[in-house]
Amino acid sequence: MFKKILIANRGEIALRVMHTCREMGICTVAVYSTADADSLHVRYADEAVCIGPPLSRESYLNIPRIIAAAEVTNADAIHPGYGFLAENADFSQVCHSSNIKFIGPSAEMINKMGDKNTAKSTMIAAGVPVVPGSEGLVEDVAHAIETAKKIGYPVIIKPTAGGGGKGMRVVHEEAQLEKNLKTAQSEAGMAFGNSGVYIEKFLENPRHIEIQILADQHGNVVHLGERDCTVQRRHQKLIEETPSPVVSEELRAEMGAAAVAAAQAINYEGAGTIEFLLDKHKKFYFMEMNTRIQVEHPVTEQRYDVDLVREQIRIADGGSLAGKTFEPRGHSIECRINAEDPEHMFRPSPGEIQVFHTPGGPGVRIDSHCYASYVVPSNYDSMIGKLIVTAHTRDEAIARMSRALDEFIVVGIKTTIPFHKQVMHDPVFRSGEFDTSFLDSFRFEKLQP
Amino acid sequence: MFKKILIANRGEIALRVMHTCREMGICTVAVYSTADADSLHVRYADEAVCIGPPLSRESYLNIPRIIAAAEVTNADAIHPGYGFLAENADFSQVCHSSNIKFIGPSAEMINKMGDKNTAKSTMIAAGVPVVPGSEGLVEDVAHAIETAKKIGYPVIIKPTAGGGGKGMRVVHEEAQLEKNLKTAQSEAGMAFGNSGVYIEKFLENPRHIEIQILADQHGNVVHLGERDCTVQRRHQKLIEETPSPVVSEELRAEMGAAAVAAAQAINYEGAGTIEFLLDKHKKFYFMEMNTRIQVEHPVTEQRYDVDLVREQIRIADGGSLAGKTFEPRGHSIECRINAEDPEHMFRPSPGEIQVFHTPGGPGVRIDSHCYASYVVPSNYDSMIGKLIVTAHTRDEAIARMSRALDEFIVVGIKTTIPFHKQVMHDPVFRSGEFDTSFLDSFRFEKLQP
Repeated sequence: MFKKILIANRGEIALRVMHTCREMGICTVAVYSTADADSLHVRYADEAVCIGPPLSRESYLNIPRIIAAAEVTNADAIHPGYGFLAENADFSQVCHSSNIKFIGPSAEMINKMGDKNTAKSTMIAAGVPVVPGSEGLVEDVAHAIETAKKIGYPVIIKPTAGGGGKGMRVVHEEAQLEKNLKTAQSEAGMAFGNSGVYIEKFLENPRHIEIQILADQHGNVVHLGERDCTVQRRHQKLIEETPSPVVSEELRAEMGAAAVAAAQAINYEGAGTIEFLLDKHKKFYFMEMNTRIQVEHPVTEQRYDVDLVREQIRIADGGSLAGKTFEPRGHSIECRINAEDPEHMFRPSPGEIQVFHTPGGPGVRIDSHCYASYVVPSNYDSMIGKLIVTAHTRDEAIARMSRALDEFIVVGIKTTIPFHKQVMHDPVFRSGEFDTSFLDSFRFEKLQP
Repeated sequence: MFKKILIANRGEIALRVMHTCREMGICTVAVYSTADADSLHVRYADEAVCIGPPLSRESYLNIPRIIAAAEVTNADAIHPGYGFLAENADFSQVCHSSNIKFIGPSAEMINKMGDKNTAKSTMIAAGVPVVPGSEGLVEDVAHAIETAKKIGYPVIIKPTAGGGGKGMRVVHEEAQLEKNLKTAQSEAGMAFGNSGVYIEKFLENPRHIEIQILADQHGNVVHLGERDCTVQRRHQKLIEETPSPVVSEELRAEMGAAAVAAAQAINYEGAGTIEFLLDKHKKFYFMEMNTRIQVEHPVTEQRYDVDLVREQIRIADGGSLAGKTFEPRGHSIECRINAEDPEHMFRPSPGEIQVFHTPGGPGVRIDSHCYASYVVPSNYDSMIGKLIVTAHTRDEAIARMSRALDEFIVVGIKTTIPFHKQVMHDPVFRSGEFDTSFLDSFRFEKLQP
């Protein structure tokens, strides 16, 4: 087993990975930018190395500096978390060449799946249903116009690298295409170091359902059910849950089998997520595969009684999934708590957290890197923590989330806590019958205490 | 179902009960002494009533004031928590007479079991093994001397009311008996308003194993396995876990059956705990029954996927246990975090908490009423919270507890966190092979970071 793992990330996921490492008796190395010197992941790690200034490309996206930090500290493996370099094939390759185990798939697998456009072709070959779209990247405006005309508006422009909604643009008519294409390319370049985008038919008002899989080095692939990530604002997931209120046992088996086939098609290794869109007729379409741990992984951990980071590390070490069973139990919901002001169009609200009081009691889990007096930097994404609840049923989980949100006190910055409180009381959300347009018609109104 | 429940308690258990009430859509009423005006249970409740000065007998033990608070607020039920009036038969009776449902057993049941001495006789009749001792309360020194002579030293003096180690005294020779008897009677009177004590043979170095039961109003009784509470300091439990490392499936079934028989013998209603001593030969002896929720109930909740407070409320409302199953999964450990200084004989360390940062991540639960800037009063017991972890195995749970303790930061007062850290690394604790004398030979030494 690895002796020391460097975590090439920041924030809650860096701390989350360190939790598991420490439980496994593995030493941890944090890397951090100067903006994160006071971050909890730095304080909690056994060792910490400053790798540069706040700008991501000079720190968290800087491969040579991260490899140097691993070599200096004698780390024998690197966990990439999510975002930043997690789906960067070059990084996986450089780790391999440097004789440092990358906890995740090989460069070849990442290229096949991390590149969303190539992935679609692979899925078509594996018999997994996909959304019609450009066959290949869209290089210029003319190609984009031609493609959109062929498949029909609305279309969606998506970055071939990365995920998390960054760089995505929905276009309803040709007049808007050029501007949006350029914005998407530019955003993708900034966020992922790769400005390639592709176009596909925009399915209106689908549900976003994804399947968690684990694949070991010995050919075993298992799925751990779905996560319903339909509650999104501008393609950013805000609330995730498992099981989905609209997925039957039968549909789960079908989607699970498709996800396993997708992983097998590229001899995948590690934890991964196959994202599908589910339309009104309960037909599902492959959207993309994320070849890394996801933000919303805790809801699967809660329902399937599994530590997915531990499984990632075990698999990277050659461990087997043979004979392992993951029995589902209960219902789990996650709310992403962001430093954003829901009363003002969710504008970012960085700054000093003066009071940070997290809820407790049965069925409540907090994944957060924040603490009182911590200054949320403006340099990175706005998530300050995840509140995860687990209960027997969806109704009980909603009631539990609601009371936990009541007890979550953050003073000093604005957060999405009041927004989540309102959603938990919303009759449409509670009914389970909604789609990705749910928040379009949602008007935030601070609940009376 | 009840519309409004008054919680006749303070601290973490008051908040814990409110969590469940809120999840069930039931309004809550807090009562508080002037020392607790800033307490979280007061802030979190829907309504709060100040019932008197800090001295317990003038507030949390004052039945007329609590009943008045319930009547003024129109509460239709009272949850007593643990300690204070939780095992006071008069209180249960007065609630009944006032047409307020007492969430717990009737006065008659409390008298049969809450009075520890009467309980022993009932257990003998029900065929449950008991420890030999005084047949009845010990009224004077002569009676005590005679009893101790008959059963042989060492003996233990125990209060017939209450629990939690208060008022207990182990006596090794006749010369010490008189002094200890008087201290025990005085402590019992102060703590429980009843100075009656009894004497029994002191089993040297047993394990403390207790069985959780639930009994409804329709004659259904189920047990939810054991909690091992062997790690004690001066009869105060510090660490509890389930399952016990020394209880086999077979022994669990035997002890469970004895616990169910004990509850059935008095037509018990509600949640209850039958405490046993387990000797070196794996023989168990009834010690006492606690007719209320226990401090350590969360470990059972974690392993059996049950909300025991919800079950208490459901049962009080006439709900049935028929057909309910409670499947165990995993291993759960609780550490009681006390405002005490382990470097100085665990002396109390009340005062202002300046920093209160609780750990998070998978398998971690916090039950606490504290927050940064909260002043721990010197008037009540020193527990400031409970840290509960759950994992697949005992080894994994210990590793998880250890890393969670590393992340639990309390500044401003001394706490038992460093003590728990050391225990988690102790080879004897880790082996699972220890008894109630474990801490006698334990020397606290602050671990190097």
